[in-house]
Amino acid sequence: MTENNVYAAPTVIQDIEVINTYELEDRAREVMPKGGFGYISGGAGDEYTLRQNTKAWDAKGILPRVLADVEFPDTSTKIFEHDIKVPFIMAPIAAHGLAHETKEAGTAKGVSEFGTIMSISAYSGAKFEEIEAGLNGSPRWFQIYMSKDEDFNKNIIDEAKADGATAIILTADATLSGNRETDVRNKFVYPFGMPIVSRYLTGSGENMSLNNIYAQSKQKIAPEDVKFLKEYSGLPVFVKGIQSPDDALLAIGAGADGVWVSNHGGRQLDGAPGSFETLEMISKAVAGRVPIVFDSGVRRGEHIFKALASGADIIALGRPVLYGLALGGWKGVRSVLEYFENDLKRVMQLAGTQTIEDVKNTTLFDNHN
Amino acid sequence: MTENNVYAAPTVIQDIEVINTYELEDRAREVMPKGGFGYISGGAGDEYTLRQNTKAWDAKGILPRVLADVEFPDTSTKIFEHDIKVPFIMAPIAAHGLAHETKEAGTAKGVSEFGTIMSISAYSGAKFEEIEAGLNGSPRWFQIYMSKDEDFNKNIIDEAKADGATAIILTADATLSGNRETDVRNKFVYPFGMPIVSRYLTGSGENMSLNNIYAQSKQKIAPEDVKFLKEYSGLPVFVKGIQSPDDALLAIGAGADGVWVSNHGGRQLDGAPGSFETLEMISKAVAGRVPIVFDSGVRRGEHIFKALASGADIIALGRPVLYGLALGGWKGVRSVLEYFENDLKRVMQLAGTQTIEDVKNTTLFDNHN
Amino acid sequence: MTENNVYAAPTVIQDIEVINTYELEDRAREVMPKGGFGYISGGAGDEYTLRQNTKAWDAKGILPRVLADVEFPDTSTKIFEHDIKVPFIMAPIAAHGLAHETKEAGTAKGVSEFGTIMSISAYSGAKFEEIEAGLNGSPRWFQIYMSKDEDFNKNIIDEAKADGATAIILTADATLSGNRETDVRNKFVYPFGMPIVSRYLTGSGENMSLNNIYAQSKQKIAPEDVKFLKEYSGLPVFVKGIQSPDDALLAIGAGADGVWVSNHGGRQLDGAPGSFETLEMISKAVAGRVPIVFDSGVRRGEHIFKALASGADIIALGRPVLYGLALGGWKGVRSVLEYFENDLKRVMQLAGTQTIEDVKNTTLFDNHN
Amino acid sequence: MTENNVYAAPTVIQDIEVINTYELEDRAREVMPKGGFGYISGGAGDEYTLRQNTKAWDAKGILPRVLADVEFPDTSTKIFEHDIKVPFIMAPIAAHGLAHETKEAGTAKGVSEFGTIMSISAYSGAKFEEIEAGLNGSPRWFQIYMSKDEDFNKNIIDEAKADGATAIILTADATLSGNRETDVRNKFVYPFGMPIVSRYLTGSGENMSLNNIYAQSKQKIAPEDVKFLKEYSGLPVFVKGIQSPDDALLAIGAGADGVWVSNHGGRQLDGAPGSFETLEMISKAVAGRVPIVFDSGVRRGEHIFKALASGADIIALGRPVLYGLALGGWKGVRSVLEYFENDLKRVMQLAGTQTIEDVKNTTLFDNHN
Repeated sequence: MTENNVYAAPTVIQDIEVINTYELEDRAREVMPKGGFGYISGGAGDEYTLRQNTKAWDAKGILPRVLADVEFPDTSTKIFEHDIKVPFIMAPIAAHGLAHETKEAGTAKGVSEFGTIMSISAYSGAKFEEIEAGLNGSPRWFQIYMSKDEDFNKNIIDEAKADGATAIILTADATLSGNRETDVRNKFVYPFGMPIVSRYLTGSGENMSLNNIYAQSKQKIAPEDVKFLKEYSGLPVFVKGIQSPDDALLAIGAGADGVWVSNHGGRQLDGAPGSFETLEMISKAVAGRVPIVFDSGVRRGEHIFKALASGADIIALGRPVLYGLALGGWKGVRSVLEYFENDLKRVMQLAGTQTIEDVKNTTLFDNHN
Repeated sequence: MTENNVYAAPTVIQDIEVINTYELEDRAREVMPKGGFGYISGGAGDEYTLRQNTKAWDAKGILPRVLADVEFPDTSTKIFEHDIKVPFIMAPIAAHGLAHETKEAGTAKGVSEFGTIMSISAYSGAKFEEIEAGLNGSPRWFQIYMSKDEDFNKNIIDEAKADGATAIILTADATLSGNRETDVRNKFVYPFGMPIVSRYLTGSGENMSLNNIYAQSKQKIAPEDVKFLKEYSGLPVFVKGIQSPDDALLAIGAGADGVWVSNHGGRQLDGAPGSFETLEMISKAVAGRVPIVFDSGVRRGEHIFKALASGADIIALGRPVLYGLALGGWKGVRSVLEYFENDLKRVMQLAGTQTIEDVKNTTLFDNHN
Repeated sequence: MTENNVYAAPTVIQDIEVINTYELEDRAREVMPKGGFGYISGGAGDEYTLRQNTKAWDAKGILPRVLADVEFPDTSTKIFEHDIKVPFIMAPIAAHGLAHETKEAGTAKGVSEFGTIMSISAYSGAKFEEIEAGLNGSPRWFQIYMSKDEDFNKNIIDEAKADGATAIILTADATLSGNRETDVRNKFVYPFGMPIVSRYLTGSGENMSLNNIYAQSKQKIAPEDVKFLKEYSGLPVFVKGIQSPDDALLAIGAGADGVWVSNHGGRQLDGAPGSFETLEMISKAVAGRVPIVFDSGVRRGEHIFKALASGADIIALGRPVLYGLALGGWKGVRSVLEYFENDLKRVMQLAGTQTIEDVKNTTLFDNHN
Repeated sequence: MTENNVYAAPTVIQDIEVINTYELEDRAREVMPKGGFGYISGGAGDEYTLRQNTKAWDAKGILPRVLADVEFPDTSTKIFEHDIKVPFIMAPIAAHGLAHETKEAGTAKGVSEFGTIMSISAYSGAKFEEIEAGLNGSPRWFQIYMSKDEDFNKNIIDEAKADGATAIILTADATLSGNRETDVRNKFVYPFGMPIVSRYLTGSGENMSLNNIYAQSKQKIAPEDVKFLKEYSGLPVFVKGIQSPDDALLAIGAGADGVWVSNHGGRQLDGAPGSFETLEMISKAVAGRVPIVFDSGVRRGEHIFKALASGADIIALGRPVLYGLALGGWKGVRSVLEYFENDLKRVMQLAGTQTIEDVKNTTLFDNHN
């Protein structure tokens, strides 16, 4: 709970107008309880890294290309067995119930109706079966925060597989909570339980702080954990939170099927570079051996374009989608995803690129800021 | 229309005092309807590129030269068959009627009275004969947005030639509308028709959004279009919207007689560099084979100087002239052009340059900002 | 005295909540008399160097490391004969009585209860025996401002040794007062005496300006002084205020046992770089021959991490601790030191470092700001 | 006149407290008529160059030196036949009467009482004999704006020599007025005559704009003019307004005895770099053959230090001295000069430099801003 005994999440379900996603944040602030909004929007420490996540885009420019014979750009791409119509998916985020009473089920329905992949967080406030009501059979990946106890981890993977997950995302950058000053100021605790991980918590998750929950999760994440998840699940495994070439190589060496470049939206180690600043060097180290998913700071179609041109294969969207959820439930989620699709198409046309492959072959310009 | 049924464009005709052209923007904001002002002044997306268009000038400094034996600098130059008294001309801009009830005819008269070249936009709100009333025989170039239908394009070129155009400007960077958030917020639609292109529109242009109009124009611009325009018109053809050396080379390869460096005033692809940031590299690629026209961000005589010293042959002025139109009709246009002439002369004197050739041979200083 | 005849220093003793140490400064401003707060918080001249001391951290980033198999990082380290649980100590600062009525004794008790090394300033407002009441036998170093008279210097060293000092810190960067405009505006004079150095002052220190006190101290600091202090005291000697490789080499050449990188918190020579900007080049010059202490601008655990990774062995904390003293007496001091310990542990975990040695072996990332 | 028929210049004569010279500008704004203050404080165009004049200092840092065995630094130096106690002099500025009713005589008395060299501007509002009343025999240099007519120039030089000038300063960067927008807004004209140059003006200077006065002066400044001044006067000649190595070499080639690096306080060619940014490259080109005087942007002792360390031999102070004149007449002038002397001494001590020669041999640090 934050301040009141009852956490009053938004309930409206409606299409929303998205002029840009920065404005969505301002609008979401008005409809969400303060503690929940602070948790979702805030970063760590000075929020240097949070700011850098969006500022970093300006370091690279897209040169317009004007004689490229392009019309109706094609945004479709493929990741593992999934053909998707856009190169972006839903990122794993905890506790969607802070944004809307329909919790993860609302997000799932918006993602499914739009037509891309859902990532389900281990810190979901909804159960798998509740989320499935929204997903309705469409593809999903499962993100895990590991327990200190291997049996619990096996349990959770069993359940995620039974639910139909086609990949496992190991979040490795959050073995304890970043220095989230806003949550401290708001005395923020989760207002509801976390049914997926509650089996290994003392408590359900309800009224627990993030620090407390992380402390009960596994701290000592190592390449062995990647091997375990891969072997036990038989599914492709991503390591999420990669910000250095060395960690990318460690992950691949341990058998990871994908590298997930992310700084957790600037919520973990402040003073780290903007996530986009690390993408190119990681991509060079990965050298095409496994796909790269990128998140942290994507707010516009141009950002998706720049990330793809810098080595990402898939972009994961987080906060903007949750703001859409807050403002319009599953319809708001769909509106946000449609905004990104339209904006990406426009940018692709103006940059003279017909396909995602063209985008990936584009050389960006070093802006002089 | 924007908000009212009647778009109340300014009507005053008077000489105006120009202290600087940034102030003109503020003054124009006060006299123009909000939707029209937003359309003319706004940029795309975050307006990063719009801001960069003016900020980029600060990256290069002009070193004063003080023993150069200069007096009464000579600003005259030549482009194709035209001897002009200054190295700047009017840029093509759509819908001057947003700024003044005299529409393009007002601008044309100001340009003609001052004594330089007018560019007529295909999205003009006035007909060729109305504009000729202002131009009164003085030189003009015609800017085309192509139709998807070749016959319409031939029609339009025929008409432009009959009107006396001495060059064709192919705007290639606007095959669809940039992400102009201000227009979306203002629900901006053109309050009047576009007689030159209405032949290929469903509708006259009146009450149509920019997105709608662009969608009915040709998206697939390619080197073939340059060839077609050149062959059919028999006139010199510029490709406008060049921001990369590669496109400059493509344009020249397709027979273009001039390269027009522009990012459409920051209104198309946001996240692109400032137009001036791209000039030097394009100029090196062009290597003097064809003349270079430069626009986007020119607000002072120093900017004209810096663009010439970086490879431009002719500078095209857009928004500041329309603000002059809004504030004083054709006399306001003339006042703005006189301001630029006087300011350029002052800068040339203080930089120790007697002629435009001297300016072009000047080496700029890399400012440390 | 500042404005009143009686300087009303804070008196409250309590644990304080530390969300971050920048906020402590704001809170301390509210409880401290203006003159005393201005003296402690202010810098020299334009305060360029003061600002740069904190801004400089952003030039280097810490790359999160996520597969490093780390849990419960160990912050302990060793300096000379002292095993300390954290790599930071209390910096020497004059006149703690400006922050709290318990003066240096309050700070000493907080430092001792927390468990690290206290630096006692020659400009202390408390006597050695009063400070010992707080220190209660725990380790301390003594910082000296030299007298022009060698006998006084011998006296002071004798007394410091009798008090149990295990090292001498020669502050060499303050042979006269920096240009502290805030103190001039506040007409700031010390509201109480300085018992340790009053033997060589005309006056006790009370009602004397910093300029006056410095003027009565020794200006001509040279390598000979290092030799003298080392020989006479028989203790390890640090030279404090080193900002150039040349001075580091001079100090080592004169027998210094440690180099103390500091720009006096931006209070002496304005226009100097941020202290952190000088650390790496000095560390390279020192090349491990003697330990390096670093101060000026440390406000977060990340800063401690970055300084260690750039060549520092020990970090000294100044202003934040005095703000803790102002807000909570010795308990406030302890709260601040605990904050730094916790924050450093969190950063070490997220950066994948188990020990201080690991931190020192970390390569920082060049941020693109 | 500006707004009223009578220009009410300040009249107070008093010592003033100088905390820093930026504050003097704010205080002068309050006591001076708006037009006069705008003329003295304003720059050209966007005031980019004006701002850069002070911002540029931050690009270079002074590394404190702390074991240099320095005490009571010696600021004395020599230029031509003059031994002066400080390395700074009064810069030539027009129309001191805008700041104080005692006009140039007030400044002269303050400069003389302090003990350095006065520069007398050809656009002085006082006659030579009136200025001599303040100078009282102390040294002076004469700055000339040349007439188009050689006879007038000879006249003026004769008069300056008769007055005792020991050098001629040819201001070469102001053959017409920079784009001073503040003066245009204020409709500023000089409220009184210019007795030294009125012989070649149509009018006395009173109620004339700067543009008008410059237009009646010589535009075509060339190396021949340097030769003429040197031969006719028999005095050392400085060329003032040098901002490029090429002009420095032209000046020396024409026989100049000194190079005066200046951008006219940012009042002439906007978009030029900050004056300090050009100093080092000019100094390298001059290579010690003639002395270098530096002005534009000097507001602190650190700035004097940095200019000397970058190749200047003498610093000229302008606006801050006139603000002192406005606030305290000749006593205010003296207060400002004393401030600079004291501040320079402090900086020299903290930087470990005993003499001006030591300062000139200092290597500055490239700040990372």
